[in-house]
Amino acid sequence: MSELQTYQGAATMEKITSLAKRRGFVFQSSEIYGGQNGAWDYGPLGVELKNRIAQNWWKEMTQLHDEIVGLDAAILMHPRTWEASGHVENFTDPLVDCKKCKARFRADQIPPECVSAKKCPECGGDLTDVRKFNLMFKTHIGPVESNDDDNVIYLRPETAQGIYVNYKNIIQSNRMKLPFGIAQIGKAFRNEIVTKNFIFRTCEFEQMEMQYFVKPGTDVEWFNEWKKRRWAYYEKLGVKMDHLRWHQHGADELAHYAKDAYDIEYLFPMGWKELEGVHNRSQYDLTRHTDYSGKDLRYIDQDDGNKKYIPFIIETSAGLTRTLLMTLCDAYDEEKIADKGAEDDCRAVLRFHPTIAPITVAVLPLQKKDGLADLAQDIRAELREDFATDYDQGGAIGRRYRRQDEAGTPFCVTIDYETKENGSVTLRFRDSMEQIRLPRGELASRLFQEIKAYKRTK
Amino acid sequence: MSELQTYQGAATMEKITSLAKRRGFVFQSSEIYGGQNGAWDYGPLGVELKNRIAQNWWKEMTQLHDEIVGLDAAILMHPRTWEASGHVENFTDPLVDCKKCKARFRADQIPPECVSAKKCPECGGDLTDVRKFNLMFKTHIGPVESNDDDNVIYLRPETAQGIYVNYKNIIQSNRMKLPFGIAQIGKAFRNEIVTKNFIFRTCEFEQMEMQYFVKPGTDVEWFNEWKKRRWAYYEKLGVKMDHLRWHQHGADELAHYAKDAYDIEYLFPMGWKELEGVHNRSQYDLTRHTDYSGKDLRYIDQDDGNKKYIPFIIETSAGLTRTLLMTLCDAYDEEKIADKGAEDDCRAVLRFHPTIAPITVAVLPLQKKDGLADLAQDIRAELREDFATDYDQGGAIGRRYRRQDEAGTPFCVTIDYETKENGSVTLRFRDSMEQIRLPRGELASRLFQEIKAYKRTK
Repeated sequence: MSELQTYQGAATMEKITSLAKRRGFVFQSSEIYGGQNGAWDYGPLGVELKNRIAQNWWKEMTQLHDEIVGLDAAILMHPRTWEASGHVENFTDPLVDCKKCKARFRADQIPPECVSAKKCPECGGDLTDVRKFNLMFKTHIGPVESNDDDNVIYLRPETAQGIYVNYKNIIQSNRMKLPFGIAQIGKAFRNEIVTKNFIFRTCEFEQMEMQYFVKPGTDVEWFNEWKKRRWAYYEKLGVKMDHLRWHQHGADELAHYAKDAYDIEYLFPMGWKELEGVHNRSQYDLTRHTDYSGKDLRYIDQDDGNKKYIPFIIETSAGLTRTLLMTLCDAYDEEKIADKGAEDDCRAVLRFHPTIAPITVAVLPLQKKDGLADLAQDIRAELREDFATDYDQGGAIGRRYRRQDEAGTPFCVTIDYETKENGSVTLRFRDSMEQIRLPRGELASRLFQEIKAYKRTK
Repeated sequence: MSELQTYQGAATMEKITSLAKRRGFVFQSSEIYGGQNGAWDYGPLGVELKNRIAQNWWKEMTQLHDEIVGLDAAILMHPRTWEASGHVENFTDPLVDCKKCKARFRADQIPPECVSAKKCPECGGDLTDVRKFNLMFKTHIGPVESNDDDNVIYLRPETAQGIYVNYKNIIQSNRMKLPFGIAQIGKAFRNEIVTKNFIFRTCEFEQMEMQYFVKPGTDVEWFNEWKKRRWAYYEKLGVKMDHLRWHQHGADELAHYAKDAYDIEYLFPMGWKELEGVHNRSQYDLTRHTDYSGKDLRYIDQDDGNKKYIPFIIETSAGLTRTLLMTLCDAYDEEKIADKGAEDDCRAVLRFHPTIAPITVAVLPLQKKDGLADLAQDIRAELREDFATDYDQGGAIGRRYRRQDEAGTPFCVTIDYETKENGSVTLRFRDSMEQIRLPRGELASRLFQEIKAYKRTK
């Protein structure tokens, strides 16, 4: 999928991974036990960033749309769900083992001649036949752990099916009429053989999905509409638009359920990679669930003579943890500076949109002494009900600005001797490093205004 | 644990379960496949309620505290974690089977004489010996699903351990000093044999936990402080305080790690049940993880001559899904009314605190015609950026108020012919059913003010 292409941004995966650990965005899971492959833990800054990305998407998709409602379905679903969806049968990777060196490979990721000659690409030993390996995590529910499959249950490998099985309940409880959407954010699990690129491909991850139900015949129009809306979403978030592109699935890539499919790809330091899919899933899912459940899942169209039909589904499916990685890469910048009080002449800065920045405003007393620390704490207390704040009183002011820049804090408020005299404070902007002076009483309303008006310029 | 006690509220479990399904708070999981035992899906109103409870707790615990930071650790943790925590060895239920009728029982939930005589309480057949059954869900990670335990991994049965294994990383990345806390919200999984009381006891559930690390010797003081703070939290949320009580764990109940433990219990329709635990976990957890990981988890106290010691941990552990059930029961009320336009003389109302209500404000045109619907949509558009709104134009206004009351919407705005004339709207309050008239331009600021000033009176 990825193409070789020169990446122009300041980020490298090494820098992002190192910053993420050092500043508490992302830690290796269970690190004290040597780490757990395929899972990551989100530290103090990371969980705030992740929550804000999720809340921002949720607001955009539900609160700002009349006809889209939310859902949070369970991770443990009835196993018939995964027969209906096709995952039990088809959600597999082709694997081969080397009988000699015991290495295991994905058959589609080693040279085809190795597979045909059945020779190991590493040691030249004999390879086994290709076997299908299902990527769903399997467990048992109930007190019997028998070898038969009576009480097998799966960790959901995607969140979409939770929406489909609840579609009728939601029509009834919320009196929905076509077209309407159901949005969901939640975890999914895949037993990936090859996890890589930090948090990009993992066994445990989070999705932000919206399934939009439309009348057959209007699906192409709605598909195009949602392509437009999702593209505009990234623009609103301040993402570098020349790092985004559309990738249409060719006939060979198109999933069995899809009538048409586009991915939004982002140019990561490791190349172009899928960020979100906008897919026309046709009537496949609801037809399958009708067949497997025996329930009538047709929509009754009261505006069209009570005609009954299976709606088409347009899906917008984004990775939450993947979007977090994108925002880290996208926001990361290095800059030559000549900032007041700086010790060196280069800074690392995360240019997060203020709506997703983990810390919105940091309050910094110029000195601890002469009551400045108390005054700063007092101002912080006024702000903390409405904003995510930080407080830092240690070290040179330039070094403290650097720390906040690297955490992506868009605004710093500095309290100095003039504050004691006339109640005015310094408001410093992360991106431009400009500083303005304003009365402390105007701080909150000015911050609200700056957050709403924010436009990324660098 | 529960005691027989007359419950005085209007809620019954039948009413709550029925309302939850009918209005889209909670659905049976995978209902079209006959349901999945132990799991529930949160519908459009339920997911909003759950998110707001979570965000309210999160704000209270992190944003409003200098010394508490957040974390989101993975569900899939290194399996050694659960050896260190004691779960592999001790997290078990005692089970017996009837050899004749094949029924299975928890040995501690059938009459002791049945266990000693080894006779089935249902058919009188022979019972097996008592066997320990571990409540952790087990799965396999990586491509081999062997029968040996090499690649066994568990779904975490509690969120707390994710905090303990990250404690050192967080001290380093966020420069934390004792006392400090780490807050986390997340899912946990237990293979419960007996799931019951709707969403109260389930296999998949969510916890809201805060682990507070303190210097040994200050633990009793901090334990009492957190008891006070957590009690005050429910008061702030508007919970009926005569439905809450403390339950101290007796010597026979106290977990092996606990020095002292109190539960906050709520009087549900089915009796007093645990809502939250405030526990002094002593040095147990970090000592165990030190032993099992070989890592030095001692804190270096720079304010006390660089002394090294294992901190004590005070835990506040609440169930998120359980709190949701509590808020449904606590908010539910039935009331004789004589409201303008009502068709009957009784209403069901959910008296949610406005900060957690799924819908904050509903906009209702008195009539669809004469441009009132457009005007109402216009006013809704002004409000939706800042508030969770609903819009309803169908049916008599009294019936529409009833629908919003039952969804727990604290404010309704009604648009009528006077709005067209002079721009004034009616603001109706859910609890008192009072109506006031105000200019539409003052609506948003009035709503902010009402939300902040809300006090439950009924």
